[in-house]
Amino acid sequence: MAIRTNRQIQLAARPIGLPKVSDFKLVEVPVSSPGIGQILTRTIYLSLDPYMRGRMSAGRSYAKPVEVGEVMTGGTVSQVIESNLGEYTPGDFVLGINGWQEYALSDGANTTKLDPRQAPISTAVGVLGMPGMSAHLGLLEIGKPKPGETVVVSAASGAVGAVVGQIAKIKGCRVVGIAGATKKCEYVTTELGFDACVSHLDDNFTKELKAMCPNGVDIYFDNVGGKVLDAVFPLLNDYARVPVCGGIANFNMTELPVGPNLVPRLMARILVRRLTLRGFIVFDHDDRREGFLKDVGGWVRSGQLKYKEHITDGLENAVSAFQGLFSGENFGKLLVKVSDDPTRS
Amino acid sequence: MAIRTNRQIQLAARPIGLPKVSDFKLVEVPVSSPGIGQILTRTIYLSLDPYMRGRMSAGRSYAKPVEVGEVMTGGTVSQVIESNLGEYTPGDFVLGINGWQEYALSDGANTTKLDPRQAPISTAVGVLGMPGMSAHLGLLEIGKPKPGETVVVSAASGAVGAVVGQIAKIKGCRVVGIAGATKKCEYVTTELGFDACVSHLDDNFTKELKAMCPNGVDIYFDNVGGKVLDAVFPLLNDYARVPVCGGIANFNMTELPVGPNLVPRLMARILVRRLTLRGFIVFDHDDRREGFLKDVGGWVRSGQLKYKEHITDGLENAVSAFQGLFSGENFGKLLVKVSDDPTRS
Repeated sequence: MAIRTNRQIQLAARPIGLPKVSDFKLVEVPVSSPGIGQILTRTIYLSLDPYMRGRMSAGRSYAKPVEVGEVMTGGTVSQVIESNLGEYTPGDFVLGINGWQEYALSDGANTTKLDPRQAPISTAVGVLGMPGMSAHLGLLEIGKPKPGETVVVSAASGAVGAVVGQIAKIKGCRVVGIAGATKKCEYVTTELGFDACVSHLDDNFTKELKAMCPNGVDIYFDNVGGKVLDAVFPLLNDYARVPVCGGIANFNMTELPVGPNLVPRLMARILVRRLTLRGFIVFDHDDRREGFLKDVGGWVRSGQLKYKEHITDGLENAVSAFQGLFSGENFGKLLVKVSDDPTRS
Repeated sequence: MAIRTNRQIQLAARPIGLPKVSDFKLVEVPVSSPGIGQILTRTIYLSLDPYMRGRMSAGRSYAKPVEVGEVMTGGTVSQVIESNLGEYTPGDFVLGINGWQEYALSDGANTTKLDPRQAPISTAVGVLGMPGMSAHLGLLEIGKPKPGETVVVSAASGAVGAVVGQIAKIKGCRVVGIAGATKKCEYVTTELGFDACVSHLDDNFTKELKAMCPNGVDIYFDNVGGKVLDAVFPLLNDYARVPVCGGIANFNMTELPVGPNLVPRLMARILVRRLTLRGFIVFDHDDRREGFLKDVGGWVRSGQLKYKEHITDGLENAVSAFQGLFSGENFGKLLVKVSDDPTRS
């Protein structure tokens, strides 16, 4: 059998602030054949997500950091090309965590078979994957939306925010998105049905946000932290809930400017308004997966819930696509197409 | 009937930062006789609490601010001296919210009869009153302590903190207090049975706190905010809970210095450690009062839960006593004895 070459992107250095090209290294390594109990897969889609920035740092976190010299971590949709593992046949599509590379061996751990007739396979790392489940879990379990309440969601056109806002609409809430580019704001109001969207790039951002939330804010689904959090905080009503999901604006910041006296203001407001801020990570809640897939899978199939993908071609473009994530260059769930998707013509 | 003179302390000006003497005004006004459906009471104890600082400011809060020219608000233990209200007889002891004054008329709203045989009447504004209930509610409902967990409580010898720590001990936790003065630290360890206490005045405060929490912190009961919060935050374990009760350190601060980059660090930690920060106010939870009185009343009567009162004599000393609250001059629940307590010999 011909020896295949596997291109992979490794962590070359721990970034300070925004990851630079030199923090990554594209290398070529030979691919072994699968041993007993193993499968060999070819990556079709690699998911790029903000949490990966956290894994590039050495600090204690909820998951082990990627070591320098290791393949960058990441969720993947792949196709089995050789199998020595009973339940898998070449041609099967699988969800895995194979990282930034073209081929991977697996013993079946963290691997789930996908049925391409149920939903496009790319959705397994998007609207029906980790981002979608974060939205569903955070909004429903922590946010607990009630009809008529006002929900604000940042990164509104992103993989998580778009799902948060659409579920909140299904639950009867007023939904105000926060995004950057005008086209993103237009998309969430005209395509996704949000009641309003405000651009954090506008000079009058704080004022506009307030105007769009005449009854205050009951749920702020935080995907960004930073100055957006600062603007939303004064609008929070009594008993408001803040699921803390992202913080993309903070992940790269070595020094982040915020308004004066923010911490005491923040703590005082938590007290006075009886707020709940709660961090959550989707991996803690596997027991909610079934309910999520039933809800969101159903809404996607019925067309009630829309999703948008931003697909970059070629593993060699993963680094620049990833960098763009932190300046909002992607429009929709960011994926790298590492090899052709045989389910799409 | 002789016309009585009522001394009362009014809000004279809205304070900036720490309340000054000139922000208050002691005035004398005549006392009317009670009308139909009213009682006239003489104040025995006036409770002084940090929340009163909030009421002196005009900002939107969970309760209406005191207006300039109005009597300062405050919980009181009083004795009925005249009654035109069926259920009350002269001599009855009552809990009320009569504010900083010697006499008050009431129609019975916000008034509860006290039985001096059940507990010393002063405890109705302390360990068996609002501070005790804040401790019980915040620790059990939000903190949800499990045996073996580590609980850190600031203002540890204070009206709330002392009860938090003792209940946490009863629930089988490791309890680390934070206080200022050495005598307070000694008191909470030797008298109240805390496992350790660290002074926030020590140069090595952060280091010592860490050393006293070798397994991290599962519950931080925040009574102070500010730099103590900053020190506790890095020690919080996964799924830690932070009931946000006080913020006494922040109430007077117009500009509070905190560590660099605290807000992004705080938000990132909420996410990564899946923390829950939740503000609460005891008045929202009247349905918990019965359970609280059963628990804490029982523990006080059995001697399992101790309390300490700091009693200042005379309404004319209320202002300086209140000012001292913000520099930790009181040692125990701060009360003003406005008139003699006939139940104490």
